[in-house]
Amino acid sequence: MIVEKVKSDGLAHLSYFIGSGSEAAVVDPRRDCDIYVEMARRRGMTIRHVFETHRNEDLVSGAPILASLTGAKVWHGPNADGEVRYADTVKEGDEFTLGDMKIRVLETPGHTYDSVSYVVYDAAFGEDAIGVLTGDALFVGDVGRTDFYPDRAREVAGLLFDSLRKIEGLGGQALVYPAHGAGSVCGGNLADREFTSLAYEAANNPMLKLRDRDEFIKSKLNEYHYQPPYFRLMEHLNLVGGAPLPDVMHPRLLTAEEAESTGADVWLDVRSTTAFAGAHLPGSLAIPSSMIAAFAGYYLDAEAKILLIADNPEQARAAACELGRIGYDGVIGFVKGVVGSAQKGEAFDSVATVSAQTVASRLNGGEANWSLLDVRKIDEFEDGHIEGAQHIFVGHLDERIEELDRNVAYTVLCASGARAMIGASLLKRRGFEKVDVFLGSMGAWKALKSKS
Amino acid sequence: MIVEKVKSDGLAHLSYFIGSGSEAAVVDPRRDCDIYVEMARRRGMTIRHVFETHRNEDLVSGAPILASLTGAKVWHGPNADGEVRYADTVKEGDEFTLGDMKIRVLETPGHTYDSVSYVVYDAAFGEDAIGVLTGDALFVGDVGRTDFYPDRAREVAGLLFDSLRKIEGLGGQALVYPAHGAGSVCGGNLADREFTSLAYEAANNPMLKLRDRDEFIKSKLNEYHYQPPYFRLMEHLNLVGGAPLPDVMHPRLLTAEEAESTGADVWLDVRSTTAFAGAHLPGSLAIPSSMIAAFAGYYLDAEAKILLIADNPEQARAAACELGRIGYDGVIGFVKGVVGSAQKGEAFDSVATVSAQTVASRLNGGEANWSLLDVRKIDEFEDGHIEGAQHIFVGHLDERIEELDRNVAYTVLCASGARAMIGASLLKRRGFEKVDVFLGSMGAWKALKSKS
Amino acid sequence: MIVEKVKSDGLAHLSYFIGSGSEAAVVDPRRDCDIYVEMARRRGMTIRHVFETHRNEDLVSGAPILASLTGAKVWHGPNADGEVRYADTVKEGDEFTLGDMKIRVLETPGHTYDSVSYVVYDAAFGEDAIGVLTGDALFVGDVGRTDFYPDRAREVAGLLFDSLRKIEGLGGQALVYPAHGAGSVCGGNLADREFTSLAYEAANNPMLKLRDRDEFIKSKLNEYHYQPPYFRLMEHLNLVGGAPLPDVMHPRLLTAEEAESTGADVWLDVRSTTAFAGAHLPGSLAIPSSMIAAFAGYYLDAEAKILLIADNPEQARAAACELGRIGYDGVIGFVKGVVGSAQKGEAFDSVATVSAQTVASRLNGGEANWSLLDVRKIDEFEDGHIEGAQHIFVGHLDERIEELDRNVAYTVLCASGARAMIGASLLKRRGFEKVDVFLGSMGAWKALKSKS
Amino acid sequence: MIVEKVKSDGLAHLSYFIGSGSEAAVVDPRRDCDIYVEMARRRGMTIRHVFETHRNEDLVSGAPILASLTGAKVWHGPNADGEVRYADTVKEGDEFTLGDMKIRVLETPGHTYDSVSYVVYDAAFGEDAIGVLTGDALFVGDVGRTDFYPDRAREVAGLLFDSLRKIEGLGGQALVYPAHGAGSVCGGNLADREFTSLAYEAANNPMLKLRDRDEFIKSKLNEYHYQPPYFRLMEHLNLVGGAPLPDVMHPRLLTAEEAESTGADVWLDVRSTTAFAGAHLPGSLAIPSSMIAAFAGYYLDAEAKILLIADNPEQARAAACELGRIGYDGVIGFVKGVVGSAQKGEAFDSVATVSAQTVASRLNGGEANWSLLDVRKIDEFEDGHIEGAQHIFVGHLDERIEELDRNVAYTVLCASGARAMIGASLLKRRGFEKVDVFLGSMGAWKALKSKS
Repeated sequence: MIVEKVKSDGLAHLSYFIGSGSEAAVVDPRRDCDIYVEMARRRGMTIRHVFETHRNEDLVSGAPILASLTGAKVWHGPNADGEVRYADTVKEGDEFTLGDMKIRVLETPGHTYDSVSYVVYDAAFGEDAIGVLTGDALFVGDVGRTDFYPDRAREVAGLLFDSLRKIEGLGGQALVYPAHGAGSVCGGNLADREFTSLAYEAANNPMLKLRDRDEFIKSKLNEYHYQPPYFRLMEHLNLVGGAPLPDVMHPRLLTAEEAESTGADVWLDVRSTTAFAGAHLPGSLAIPSSMIAAFAGYYLDAEAKILLIADNPEQARAAACELGRIGYDGVIGFVKGVVGSAQKGEAFDSVATVSAQTVASRLNGGEANWSLLDVRKIDEFEDGHIEGAQHIFVGHLDERIEELDRNVAYTVLCASGARAMIGASLLKRRGFEKVDVFLGSMGAWKALKSKS
Repeated sequence: MIVEKVKSDGLAHLSYFIGSGSEAAVVDPRRDCDIYVEMARRRGMTIRHVFETHRNEDLVSGAPILASLTGAKVWHGPNADGEVRYADTVKEGDEFTLGDMKIRVLETPGHTYDSVSYVVYDAAFGEDAIGVLTGDALFVGDVGRTDFYPDRAREVAGLLFDSLRKIEGLGGQALVYPAHGAGSVCGGNLADREFTSLAYEAANNPMLKLRDRDEFIKSKLNEYHYQPPYFRLMEHLNLVGGAPLPDVMHPRLLTAEEAESTGADVWLDVRSTTAFAGAHLPGSLAIPSSMIAAFAGYYLDAEAKILLIADNPEQARAAACELGRIGYDGVIGFVKGVVGSAQKGEAFDSVATVSAQTVASRLNGGEANWSLLDVRKIDEFEDGHIEGAQHIFVGHLDERIEELDRNVAYTVLCASGARAMIGASLLKRRGFEKVDVFLGSMGAWKALKSKS
Repeated sequence: MIVEKVKSDGLAHLSYFIGSGSEAAVVDPRRDCDIYVEMARRRGMTIRHVFETHRNEDLVSGAPILASLTGAKVWHGPNADGEVRYADTVKEGDEFTLGDMKIRVLETPGHTYDSVSYVVYDAAFGEDAIGVLTGDALFVGDVGRTDFYPDRAREVAGLLFDSLRKIEGLGGQALVYPAHGAGSVCGGNLADREFTSLAYEAANNPMLKLRDRDEFIKSKLNEYHYQPPYFRLMEHLNLVGGAPLPDVMHPRLLTAEEAESTGADVWLDVRSTTAFAGAHLPGSLAIPSSMIAAFAGYYLDAEAKILLIADNPEQARAAACELGRIGYDGVIGFVKGVVGSAQKGEAFDSVATVSAQTVASRLNGGEANWSLLDVRKIDEFEDGHIEGAQHIFVGHLDERIEELDRNVAYTVLCASGARAMIGASLLKRRGFEKVDVFLGSMGAWKALKSKS
Repeated sequence: MIVEKVKSDGLAHLSYFIGSGSEAAVVDPRRDCDIYVEMARRRGMTIRHVFETHRNEDLVSGAPILASLTGAKVWHGPNADGEVRYADTVKEGDEFTLGDMKIRVLETPGHTYDSVSYVVYDAAFGEDAIGVLTGDALFVGDVGRTDFYPDRAREVAGLLFDSLRKIEGLGGQALVYPAHGAGSVCGGNLADREFTSLAYEAANNPMLKLRDRDEFIKSKLNEYHYQPPYFRLMEHLNLVGGAPLPDVMHPRLLTAEEAESTGADVWLDVRSTTAFAGAHLPGSLAIPSSMIAAFAGYYLDAEAKILLIADNPEQARAAACELGRIGYDGVIGFVKGVVGSAQKGEAFDSVATVSAQTVASRLNGGEANWSLLDVRKIDEFEDGHIEGAQHIFVGHLDERIEELDRNVAYTVLCASGARAMIGASLLKRRGFEKVDVFLGSMGAWKALKSKS
């Protein structure tokens, strides 16, 4: 009997290959789902079912694709806002058998109305649940966000409270298998640990320890979460069923001339933060490959034709895969770095990186026409920031650009400089000419302060 | 924070790569230990410690090898029969820190005197243990065997009982990470499941449910376990420290002539059961690659020069790896199958496979000078066997060969025919000419009986 | 500038990835053509063209599939019997440029009417051809077969003679890149070497050394080649354009019960020759995975639903791939070996393997109702055989089965025993009960004779 | 019969796995030589011999290592300056047999005194050579350099002329397999193509076409080649026999603090050119991983303790492998990028990248205290440069640093900007504060000029 986790790093998404004997199921498969088929075949197992814990808003579900590859049936909870076209509906108490493994459905609404958990039993042993796949209801160290129905916020927070009690009712012995790990945009304070039991969570998860329903609801209403616009697209795709990823995920290498003629909507530079700083193609948007899952969805249109700038084919491939998982299939090809283009006489640009000392002396010197722009999340900003810094979250820079002044020089900062570089690239695309990045950002700032 | 299992299938041995942030440790590493180094490097972690739960008797520990590759320190429990030369001693309450992970030592003797468990805490959360690495003290669904000190059997069984209570004292919330899974020779009734919590085991593990100390001891004394002779070698190696595996594990392909001239002590046929039946080189010993971990240790001397017969280089490589994990480094090379040798005029032999119907009619017909030889474990045999069948466990056939009669025709059987083919090859090596194998064995027999 | 060979072992088929700078082409791609796309992407090259040297009769061309994956254009020679729907036509003298590489078309009919060669020049150097991709016109050590137009045999042999002169006209300095290597069914005496120059061939290739046109024609007319029936299907598919391989090539593992219910047309046992001998499922056809390319096309219908019997998933996968390359997409799944089925009480069968000594004593003893059946190619048989042996080529056994007598016991032989086991399985499928296989066959026979 | 090329990209070094039947040899193996062992095992071949064409000066020979892994014998030509301790000596006419392949030794001194070529014959065909492994005597499109014995330059150039005639004597049909491809530091004008025949070279290789001995010698004496200082070390190692590469080639990730405490002699930044420009650790030397083979040997001492700065573990690993191939085993570990260090408050630096327009306006404006520094090879510089630019080859910057003025601002350039960034990092290490890099360099300059 196995419960094997498959993790997608960028999204911090966790899916599970489960089963016993020769029968298997997959819970919350991601879009590039060949991996589950190979897991099954290598173990001599057959995928009988695909279980969804809820309609994902942050990624394209692989459920319909996996179903068509394997002939498995897809199951989804009740109360979906619209009909999930590729799935049958499960409801409280429905049972499935995979060899010695028994699966029982527990309705656990709150994060969404259609959220269910799948409880795992070992029929060769006793009556107790041995594990529970909780989707986005219960995480390690946190619980799911409940901000998707703003006008019914109180109701769904209460529903989640009730669902958590139901899950706890399975007993402390049960292991917990959530749909996300630390780093996900689907929760705030997930633990940097991907294994736990209900008993451990009951004693240590701050949100589970809130035993008063009203207090719990209040706490949830006080949370603030960002919603990248691509969530809308995901919700739609996960009703109608997403298409498989394009066959070959290796983007084509293009020459500078070919790149020009592609008519790409966006030139996406997926190289490292410092490589973009050193030299980049004018007008390109900087999102390093590992940050695509968290940030691309703020800036890219669903149908955008995307040209990548990457150091090498592997980096381009990784970026295309990250994009594909969140529904962006418009990758046309990639250009290799910037040096080659420069050698052919193409224009390039750069972003200066400045240090804490420089920032400090500008602040002290009363630098004119200059401002610090902090692009972290609002809660990070509120936890402590450099006095006088202006705040706009990096994901909102594009839509709030008019709050900034093209005559002012901006030094962009975040926690390290990585999000700041995304921000700097956005500003330059929108015509800001005097932009640099505080490398090290708040980390370096605190280090400087602690020394002085 | 991670606890990642590395499984070696043949031995059903489980080792663990654990850690947090950039610091890692490995628990009970196997001999081919490059895998842990790569896990660490890929994650940007450094292996600081190697923890042994006890002196392994069924495999060569990779601890000293991993230590020399990484500079990590090896830790071993107290009370080892001799000095574990490559390790420092841990004792009750010793603590280690790896990023947010805290590890505490729990002495849990019983399986061996030097058994310890390592308890895992998440310092970012509370005081409760989140997991425990139990070695061979506690398995999923079973507990460790206690037959290694025959003259102190009662004492060590009692020690194990006490150790299990100590482990339970960590609380039901803790996840359990044992050193073996189902299929191991180190336990009898391990669950076919590799995840559990202490609370689940407390409620469902038959041996944990035995709350009476004397009853527990009595139950342990009633168990029977086999001890392959190579255990002695392992115990020695795991005191002095085993050498790394030979550099290149791909055995060389040899021609039939080269094979003849190698002076190999044993020709080991690692092809499938039916391939050996169809044709094999006279005098060769049949142990399919996947059965090496369980059976090779009964027949091979520590220093044996071994020539493999394999279908292809991959199969030869897998066999050499299985042999290396249990201390056999004497693989000289391999011969590819039997057809090529036959084509060059070399002699070959075969073993007839007979069906349940044939066995039944021989029994009914009172076949003369013929006997059924059942080579399963004694407890399998006692659970039910064909009337009149003689029993010798396959691992004991070599030493008890004189109980058999070279003038009698033997039909060897087990549960399926796989162990029976090993037995048939042993008989033929020892001069028995009339040997066949009951393919399907007890499985087929029961199917036949249920139809009639 | 590169010319990289991609070899498909079973078919001994050679395709080529060629190009210079960032531009590439593929010559005679096989059906599983992701490999070319990956080669291009890894090198930062774009596949601009797909060149076919002729309409392949022994495999499914990957040209239309590769074109749809890459947007490349497919090119095919003139005079195809029908319209090659997915290709444009090239003719003598057409030129293509890929970076520094220039490609010129040379019409070289004979093997087929539509055969062309592609001549490679390095524009950075001189006027001389540096290489020529000869398809099935010129091999290393042999030339193409010319038996596909029986009523115009003399004409096409003459055409080939003229084409070879044309190729020689390129100059001895040119390297030769043919479409097949040793082991192909497309030629008789290919060298066991895959590199040569025109000068070397001119001096050493027996068929190129035949400088007299009539003598050459006579020699070609005297050749005998087998034509597996699936050639017809290939010729058709390679006009209309084959479909891509099924998405996931790992066949599903089926239980014995599932296997029964699949309604498979043929149970194809792809395990080793000796494994089939040891035990197999009654009625199954024995073709080891590595022999599929050469023999499956004689026995399987284009639309056959095929159930595999394999030792493990990798073997099943390799077999499915070999089948797919020659157009058989009907693989339903696989059953793992025979021991498991036997254990469930399923029937099994075996084939005895006999030695040269046994055959000799049967011959000497005048064994009654017994015959030797030699299933080698007719030319092998005519080169020397055991007196009294009956000859039917293994590929013709099914259609000539009525020439054999079900009351006679047959010992099947070939050169080693491998084809003989295929033959034995065919006989048993057709109701012959007394069948064994001479393991070692003519090889062992000669060894025995040389000793006596 | 096979001749398979193994290419090491950085060094543009070509080694060969050759053989026939079950017998193989390796010609000029590289240091990381497991690859040859795996090639042999996968094909069921045994490596019997290791052939060296000459004592390599640009890389660590894997010959003694491969010999100890396989038991093969190493062969080296006569007249080595010292005794090659791990090899036996071959001389003109010595023959070796590998299955059908025959190998004959041809003494071909000139590049070195000990240079030999290995001529390949196919015994199954005729008397003609089918190929020749020419080492550094004859390349595709060029011949070997003859500048290693400055006081006997005329003599060795003449020797090479004679050797080339000897090679030509094998006949135009023979294929040529040299020890280097385009990009090697061992020749000047190698073709960007790795396949040819003697006939093609005779007609198209400019140096082979020089049929007059004196003219050939004059031409060789007029060539200028750089000799990185590490050549001395290689020559020594390849007499006494290099050690195997360190076991595990994945460098350890170090934290900034650990990095500080390692006492590394050099911090080697192997990230991309633009990443170094964007931000780097002060004092670090910039050599992107792919440029290590060509440039590291100018700057690093044989015993240097090297700390890498890399984007990720894969890049660090590739760099360590490139370093190991040229004898640098002192890699201590790696630091991941610069952002993390900056976030901890560590200092960083950057290099501005300037465009052709900027350079042009500085030139036109008569920028004071500013100079262009061209670091290309002398022959590139002499072929055309920007007026007023100072020339020092990048490999000589360290030793000629005092020719530069710390009060002057330097804009470093090369052909693209890549070597210029190495140069800029060297200047900054040596205390030059006003340094930027002309990105695009001569390529961009020509593009600008062609527009105006």
